[in-house]
Amino acid sequence: MTRDADTRTLSFASDYLEGAHPAILDRLVQTNMEQTPGYGTDAHSEQARELIRAACGVPQAEVRFLVGGTQANACVIGCALRPWQGVVAASTGHVSAHEAGAIEFGGHKVMELPAVNGKIDAAQVEAYVNRWENDDNRDHMVMPGMVYVSQPTEYGTLYTRDELEGLSRVCHDHDMLLYVDGARLAYALAAPNNDVTLPDLARLCDAFYLGGTKCGCLFGEAVVVPDPTTIPHFFTQIKQRGALLAKGRIAGIQFEVLFEDGLYERIGAMAVQEAARIRKRLEACGLTQPIESPTNQVFVLAEDAWLARFGQHVEYSFWEKPDAGHTVIRLATSWATRGEDVDALLELIDA
Amino acid sequence: MTRDADTRTLSFASDYLEGAHPAILDRLVQTNMEQTPGYGTDAHSEQARELIRAACGVPQAEVRFLVGGTQANACVIGCALRPWQGVVAASTGHVSAHEAGAIEFGGHKVMELPAVNGKIDAAQVEAYVNRWENDDNRDHMVMPGMVYVSQPTEYGTLYTRDELEGLSRVCHDHDMLLYVDGARLAYALAAPNNDVTLPDLARLCDAFYLGGTKCGCLFGEAVVVPDPTTIPHFFTQIKQRGALLAKGRIAGIQFEVLFEDGLYERIGAMAVQEAARIRKRLEACGLTQPIESPTNQVFVLAEDAWLARFGQHVEYSFWEKPDAGHTVIRLATSWATRGEDVDALLELIDA
Amino acid sequence: MTRDADTRTLSFASDYLEGAHPAILDRLVQTNMEQTPGYGTDAHSEQARELIRAACGVPQAEVRFLVGGTQANACVIGCALRPWQGVVAASTGHVSAHEAGAIEFGGHKVMELPAVNGKIDAAQVEAYVNRWENDDNRDHMVMPGMVYVSQPTEYGTLYTRDELEGLSRVCHDHDMLLYVDGARLAYALAAPNNDVTLPDLARLCDAFYLGGTKCGCLFGEAVVVPDPTTIPHFFTQIKQRGALLAKGRIAGIQFEVLFEDGLYERIGAMAVQEAARIRKRLEACGLTQPIESPTNQVFVLAEDAWLARFGQHVEYSFWEKPDAGHTVIRLATSWATRGEDVDALLELIDA
Amino acid sequence: MTRDADTRTLSFASDYLEGAHPAILDRLVQTNMEQTPGYGTDAHSEQARELIRAACGVPQAEVRFLVGGTQANACVIGCALRPWQGVVAASTGHVSAHEAGAIEFGGHKVMELPAVNGKIDAAQVEAYVNRWENDDNRDHMVMPGMVYVSQPTEYGTLYTRDELEGLSRVCHDHDMLLYVDGARLAYALAAPNNDVTLPDLARLCDAFYLGGTKCGCLFGEAVVVPDPTTIPHFFTQIKQRGALLAKGRIAGIQFEVLFEDGLYERIGAMAVQEAARIRKRLEACGLTQPIESPTNQVFVLAEDAWLARFGQHVEYSFWEKPDAGHTVIRLATSWATRGEDVDALLELIDA
Repeated sequence: MTRDADTRTLSFASDYLEGAHPAILDRLVQTNMEQTPGYGTDAHSEQARELIRAACGVPQAEVRFLVGGTQANACVIGCALRPWQGVVAASTGHVSAHEAGAIEFGGHKVMELPAVNGKIDAAQVEAYVNRWENDDNRDHMVMPGMVYVSQPTEYGTLYTRDELEGLSRVCHDHDMLLYVDGARLAYALAAPNNDVTLPDLARLCDAFYLGGTKCGCLFGEAVVVPDPTTIPHFFTQIKQRGALLAKGRIAGIQFEVLFEDGLYERIGAMAVQEAARIRKRLEACGLTQPIESPTNQVFVLAEDAWLARFGQHVEYSFWEKPDAGHTVIRLATSWATRGEDVDALLELIDA
Repeated sequence: MTRDADTRTLSFASDYLEGAHPAILDRLVQTNMEQTPGYGTDAHSEQARELIRAACGVPQAEVRFLVGGTQANACVIGCALRPWQGVVAASTGHVSAHEAGAIEFGGHKVMELPAVNGKIDAAQVEAYVNRWENDDNRDHMVMPGMVYVSQPTEYGTLYTRDELEGLSRVCHDHDMLLYVDGARLAYALAAPNNDVTLPDLARLCDAFYLGGTKCGCLFGEAVVVPDPTTIPHFFTQIKQRGALLAKGRIAGIQFEVLFEDGLYERIGAMAVQEAARIRKRLEACGLTQPIESPTNQVFVLAEDAWLARFGQHVEYSFWEKPDAGHTVIRLATSWATRGEDVDALLELIDA
Repeated sequence: MTRDADTRTLSFASDYLEGAHPAILDRLVQTNMEQTPGYGTDAHSEQARELIRAACGVPQAEVRFLVGGTQANACVIGCALRPWQGVVAASTGHVSAHEAGAIEFGGHKVMELPAVNGKIDAAQVEAYVNRWENDDNRDHMVMPGMVYVSQPTEYGTLYTRDELEGLSRVCHDHDMLLYVDGARLAYALAAPNNDVTLPDLARLCDAFYLGGTKCGCLFGEAVVVPDPTTIPHFFTQIKQRGALLAKGRIAGIQFEVLFEDGLYERIGAMAVQEAARIRKRLEACGLTQPIESPTNQVFVLAEDAWLARFGQHVEYSFWEKPDAGHTVIRLATSWATRGEDVDALLELIDA
Repeated sequence: MTRDADTRTLSFASDYLEGAHPAILDRLVQTNMEQTPGYGTDAHSEQARELIRAACGVPQAEVRFLVGGTQANACVIGCALRPWQGVVAASTGHVSAHEAGAIEFGGHKVMELPAVNGKIDAAQVEAYVNRWENDDNRDHMVMPGMVYVSQPTEYGTLYTRDELEGLSRVCHDHDMLLYVDGARLAYALAAPNNDVTLPDLARLCDAFYLGGTKCGCLFGEAVVVPDPTTIPHFFTQIKQRGALLAKGRIAGIQFEVLFEDGLYERIGAMAVQEAARIRKRLEACGLTQPIESPTNQVFVLAEDAWLARFGQHVEYSFWEKPDAGHTVIRLATSWATRGEDVDALLELIDA
């Protein structure tokens, strides 16, 4: 469990570079030889479900552990929508752009709305659904049946509670479901200015997932459906989509560890603090941050010369190229980010 | 990493009751803080692929690590077939009966043939495809495009090399692919009378998978496609089906451990030996074994009185109820089966 | 509107050899320049729907005009089933064998039961659904959600009212829908021993269709859904499947003609009478009829020598080859069969 | 075959208000009692295919007759694309907006580009595909596999030959197919400034269809695939999608009539001339035509007062509401438009 001490390159390329939080791995080791039934019917999975229900304040919720984010999105969207419905999403949303057409593979249109910093708002959704409702040809068109947003967004930005209330109201006024992709939810929950709690999500959404893959797990996403009738026969539908884990407990145990004593929160808090240190230094050095992200992702508008030097020592993620001389890059922290690596990074920013 | 010593109940209910082989778990711990790129592009996954290619004697093969068996079947079959094709399988095959319609969800018909002890043969397949070829209405029918068999079968039985040669010949004579589901392949490879090697599979099949979930892994199946052109854009198709693991290395590392020094074989051998001990005792006690399985599954035709007593101490799997007074049960060994538990089981058989 | 008088070959190859019943074609001519809205919202389509609702005794039924039989089956089955459900059908049913996998293309398994002369019975269905209900692994299996039968069957045979009552009872006792494919329904309704009326179908089934293509129309099938909530948003789902006719009236007008003064019944009666004449002559000549079909299809077990001669003058449909010296052939009458052609056929049978 | 002489309302609401061109209906009557094999294997269908091949200058092309436009689009796009590919289209394209998600139902993403008067251009497509090709994450994204345009567009506008050459070049440079939806193609071919011929389409496109439903037929679209290997097993795929017409000749005969002596061209020419008369009068009266359509669709920016009066006598199609006091309406001519009705319309415009 070591990392090569004299690695020259620091990597802030993504938030899924390492394995699992040590506490999770320890528990997998401790429980390894227990004999349990499969498919999530074991006691660990049940305990994890209970912990998540309690954290969200929804004792009757259906909770299912899936393996990854695209799979969670495809399952929730595909299993909750009826054939004549589509899902409304930001054009920059993960389901719109980066899932290789998984939603369409399941038969549903992704109805893309233009986004600002990864976000769409209630007024946009209302205008869209109104246009559909008032179109005499609406029976020849896909019915908007769900709104998909991510918290935090793919740009690290957050919806406020007011904004989610607004989206929820529009959705439910127009018989649409609201679904929140929480691939990085731990980092949203820990952001200083965040005012959206898990019970808020459970109250406002029809489905959401607590991301594990990017928040401390080897893999795994916990889908929460506050009212289980929203997705009938979800177990069989998950199986049908090849998404049912035989040894379901491997996911269950990981979420048990995350939620039994606040680890999910601590993971979020630590990563967000490290990201804040990076942002502060960037600001101090006069580097532009084109997207104000309060979570674990940091965006830098970098001049090419600066980037050429910086890139010799740091792995980052390319975001976009706004003009010939500049590049927007992303730096991500995570549960695994070490303070000393951030110290080293800060010096490289300065340099 | 202990199991309660005075557990009263022995479980032989399935071969996925525990976590992972300790050597695998150890490696996950050792490598945990390494930073690697995602989606199976890391060095561990590449090394695992190389080891598997070498073990199968196909240096150019495409190897992809998926999470579970239904997912592997749905991906291989769905991605290799064209829309007008279906897959021929035993009516008892996993894809026919126990995948909640995953193949049909992907748009393809499972064309079921009657099976004997889980097996179908070349003559059956040839008769089936001949009937299709000679039917004037064949353009109104699903074209048989692939044959699916499992090795060992769902009944623990084995195809001989001759039988697989026959199936392979029929398939390739009629432009069909041959695909072998190896969910329990380690136990087939270790069976005393087995004559089908990994290079045989690679030579005779168009795709097959080396099962991990039931053979020592937390999860994971290694799909091998000897000629990568068989399944174009497999990576993107896997992503589209929600089956791409973000931290691909978690699967890669597990297969690296299985194949770097013969662990896969040792796991198979141990489980098969323990199963053989059980079979021998059943025979000695005059208990009927309705299916001759040489692998890790043991089937017993049990009288109800015997079963009532036996079931107080042993968890088994219900197989079928042939008549009022009898039940066929299945006992499964695995990499995790302990000799002392088998000793205890033998005494209970005797009693 | 003539046929070459000295055509040497009589064709009894199928029941869709000609265009449309002259009364239908006349009406298309008369109404041709009327201007109507599209997609079945015109007055002719509405009138046809009303006539069919009245004939079936279900004033509230949803009636939709589709183009062909495979399309009707794919739309009804695909739109009524939920993703986790499949359709139970005879292995000889049209959906099982002759629709190029249209049902599976829509994501659903066809669960085939062995048939006798094209029929399955309530006991078979009950045994099948009981097996599913009692299987501990049923959540890993496709749920039987519908039973498909055809009336008459692909073998020209009929379900009695008692048999349909039985199927209906089993279906509704087990939360399954009953769907009847009536591609040749006119010929069933007209059979002397038939006791199943349109109101019976409407009472016992959740959906059925009145075939037009094989019963007098250029094309067209009238799907009847007695309780419209059975298939929500059927219009949009039809559109989504490319099955919505722009000039819906072309189908509506045809059914208007069929049902305004009993033409559908007269078409059936005439074809069945001509088929009866053929059957009687076959019997008189000692030729075996391997399937007792009381409708418009006649099956003959023909010796090869007889067939070689017969085939010089008559086009028939190959059915199957039971042994080296014999062939089963099918002769079909229809609304378009002329008495003088049957006379000529009778002489050829004799010869 | 009369229309009520004193009908007060003129309808220019769409181009599919009536049945079929009388010449087509006559031929259906003449050929009605001919006996032919089904599924488009008859001599009329073959003759129609030959005529279309000749008109397009592609003697080897595959020609298939489908029933409607959405069906044709869903079949061509769904059958030609591979699962990992999507289709690029104008956001105003029929496949994007008005097919109830038929393309997504078949598993493919519609990748929408902003359109100007219904058109997209080669530069837009090139930029789009370049962005995909240069994205390091392209294997996680849908591959653009086809470009869809309509000729004329949904706005009645035309692509020039140069523009289509450009689109064709970009497509083929980047391994994409070019597909042209010709629902109203007759009206494009007849437009005075049109320079795109059928042989041009056959040379530049990988598939296109000659619309029948809106150009003189009861129903029917003739799909042309210049290189038949572009869509393998098209017949079976059509059947699988419920799109195969049993009495294929009914479509074949209609296209035989359209193409045996230039009827398709005459239909186009007549409708375009009548539309030109309307446009001229609108211009003379100072009414704004917001879209310059040279085909059979005429768009008017109408003040509400004018429209209130006009609408008492004329059925039109609502297009959009640009501001409180104005409405854009569409008037459509067709093969069935009578000169005297246009005369009456011109007076109403004046009034």
